[in-house]
Amino acid sequence: MSDSLDELDLPIEALRRRQNRKWTRYGPDVIPAWIADMDYRAEPSVQAALTRLLAEEDYGYPDRAGDIAERAVAAAFAQHQRELYGWDPDPELVQPVSDLVQAMLATVVSYAEPREGVLLQVPAYPPFRAAVENARRTLVANAMQDDGRRWTLDLAGLEALAPQARMLLVCNPHNPTGRVFARDELTELGRIAVDHDLVLVSDEVHSELVYPGHRHIPTAMISPEVAARTVTITSATKSFNIGGLRCGVIHFGSAALFDRFRRCFPDRLLGQINAFGVDATIAAWGTGHSWLRRVMAKLGSNRARIGDFCANQLPAARYHEPEATYFAWLDLSAFNLLPSAHEFLLDAARIATSAGSEFGPEYAEFVRLNFATSPTILEEILSRVGVALGAGHRI
Amino acid sequence: MSDSLDELDLPIEALRRRQNRKWTRYGPDVIPAWIADMDYRAEPSVQAALTRLLAEEDYGYPDRAGDIAERAVAAAFAQHQRELYGWDPDPELVQPVSDLVQAMLATVVSYAEPREGVLLQVPAYPPFRAAVENARRTLVANAMQDDGRRWTLDLAGLEALAPQARMLLVCNPHNPTGRVFARDELTELGRIAVDHDLVLVSDEVHSELVYPGHRHIPTAMISPEVAARTVTITSATKSFNIGGLRCGVIHFGSAALFDRFRRCFPDRLLGQINAFGVDATIAAWGTGHSWLRRVMAKLGSNRARIGDFCANQLPAARYHEPEATYFAWLDLSAFNLLPSAHEFLLDAARIATSAGSEFGPEYAEFVRLNFATSPTILEEILSRVGVALGAGHRI
Repeated sequence: MSDSLDELDLPIEALRRRQNRKWTRYGPDVIPAWIADMDYRAEPSVQAALTRLLAEEDYGYPDRAGDIAERAVAAAFAQHQRELYGWDPDPELVQPVSDLVQAMLATVVSYAEPREGVLLQVPAYPPFRAAVENARRTLVANAMQDDGRRWTLDLAGLEALAPQARMLLVCNPHNPTGRVFARDELTELGRIAVDHDLVLVSDEVHSELVYPGHRHIPTAMISPEVAARTVTITSATKSFNIGGLRCGVIHFGSAALFDRFRRCFPDRLLGQINAFGVDATIAAWGTGHSWLRRVMAKLGSNRARIGDFCANQLPAARYHEPEATYFAWLDLSAFNLLPSAHEFLLDAARIATSAGSEFGPEYAEFVRLNFATSPTILEEILSRVGVALGAGHRI
Repeated sequence: MSDSLDELDLPIEALRRRQNRKWTRYGPDVIPAWIADMDYRAEPSVQAALTRLLAEEDYGYPDRAGDIAERAVAAAFAQHQRELYGWDPDPELVQPVSDLVQAMLATVVSYAEPREGVLLQVPAYPPFRAAVENARRTLVANAMQDDGRRWTLDLAGLEALAPQARMLLVCNPHNPTGRVFARDELTELGRIAVDHDLVLVSDEVHSELVYPGHRHIPTAMISPEVAARTVTITSATKSFNIGGLRCGVIHFGSAALFDRFRRCFPDRLLGQINAFGVDATIAAWGTGHSWLRRVMAKLGSNRARIGDFCANQLPAARYHEPEATYFAWLDLSAFNLLPSAHEFLLDAARIATSAGSEFGPEYAEFVRLNFATSPTILEEILSRVGVALGAGHRI
């Protein structure tokens, strides 16, 4: 590979020294472009906060600002939402958690009884699908629609399926399609939740990874009526690439929602967050903005490169540029790849993508490609994919 | 204060720089001797493991040895128990958790229905009392007995109360009394659990903090019959002083126990453990033994100093030397301290102990004093307590 690293990039040898799942699950000849880790240096204020913990060997029960650390994370969340989106969540209605899969499971258990329906858009983040099934609730899947230009919410489908559900999960911005839902879509989604008396759980973990021209709107800002039935789950782990630090938040749009949750999960049953996750999250949300702008510029140019590649080299692939996230959701069905698009690319190109089938059984011919890497590695990925798929030629 | 620090000690200024609860909850004129943090340097292999994470900026989803990090922690737990106690727990029956309060709450919810009885020895670790109450189960308290020489399990009381309970929680070694239960006591405890069909939850987090002359026996080693109904909860956080890193384990003595638990808590509902907790725990259990021997030698001499102090300066205090832990459980009822022993010492001596009343309402005239500090600070603590209580004089 050629060498064109900037201050965010790490050489591939350094990436392989990391013991994260992304870089260790496959053999050394495979380039990983699957799980949601970015191949970048850490955000400097996050690194400084963790360095302080090590310097002081500060590993005891964490208080921050004279209270348990959970309260400081709740305050940082509220401040951050105010700054970014003008939303003013109540830090008293925040429950910190380890991660958003835990958050999703806990809300599903709190707001739907066993076998009751939980409505979500597919394709969907695999652990969320698993969460509904592991909790023995019934997954009610509403498929996103391709309007030829982008993936859209099927609002008519949602309305038709709503009577089967007690809850509605929305992932906004949407993983894996990268859609940033617009105000009119969210307004209609909120109306359906109100009309059918659904609890609305909004996963907004990708909200900071939005490209220019799009704007994230917290679901709870749609209206006070919607806010009162909305549970927002988010974390700094995705945009600041600290998934292994395990720190996220659940915000309840009303005291009544929090009370129902608390009856299922008394304080501390969901665990406590750790000092490293706490301080990294507070640093990221507090002072991580300029780093994030550099990351978004870099992701933007990678996204442009993928757009070019698909248009020029793989015209048979169906692909809509994501409005947020560092994922390309690629429909490779035109290539008739066997046994699946994921397995074909792993075998033939030695590129590990996320298998489309994990996002829904009907997506076996899709892959989700993580492009949060260096231009050098991205070129190698595209080159390998191109060769394996006979780029430039319709197959 | 005079200066006699060894390689484990930190100067008081460094301790006050730590943002842990112990050193920040009270004002700068108070010396904290309460919550279970030790005032020592970190264990070197723990520090090395955390330093590697920072050097690699390795904050992604953690795999270890080709599998999710949870499995590596389970394997480290099993290996450690074999080495220390000759117990051979099944790593497949291990659920990692954030902390032992979470573990206790989750087991109480799994094995007792609302309002059913949960039997525990008092005095008891305050969050365990709170766990039973927060889960809306009924706390059935059996008081430890003072035989004039040590605190003992009231086995007759246990037998009498057992019909009111579905579960029996045992903390061994016992916090706050420091008892290391002997084989005959544990055998009888196990027989009661079998006879009354109780699930036995054994908190063994202090098992490595045992002084010479005593030996920890895992409850699950008493007999196969007892093992099959025993849930063991432990963590490296107490003995290696990494409470803020949030990593512990639940081990189920049978697949049937794990199945019942899993029906209440599907995989990932309790959250995932973080990379810092994972690597610190694996390092501590794997290579932390020599550091722990130095810590125990130091705690042993602090314990001896407290024994001398109580015998010579505070003969009216009732105190039995702990067989494990770094806690002195002091009965100060002879001093008639108002409004409570804890508040009196905080006001008059500017020493923060743990209030006896937190361990049970009948213990307001007790305090738990944490002596895991430097000899320098310990002398200051004893001096202040001695002056406040008119040391050397019966009051």
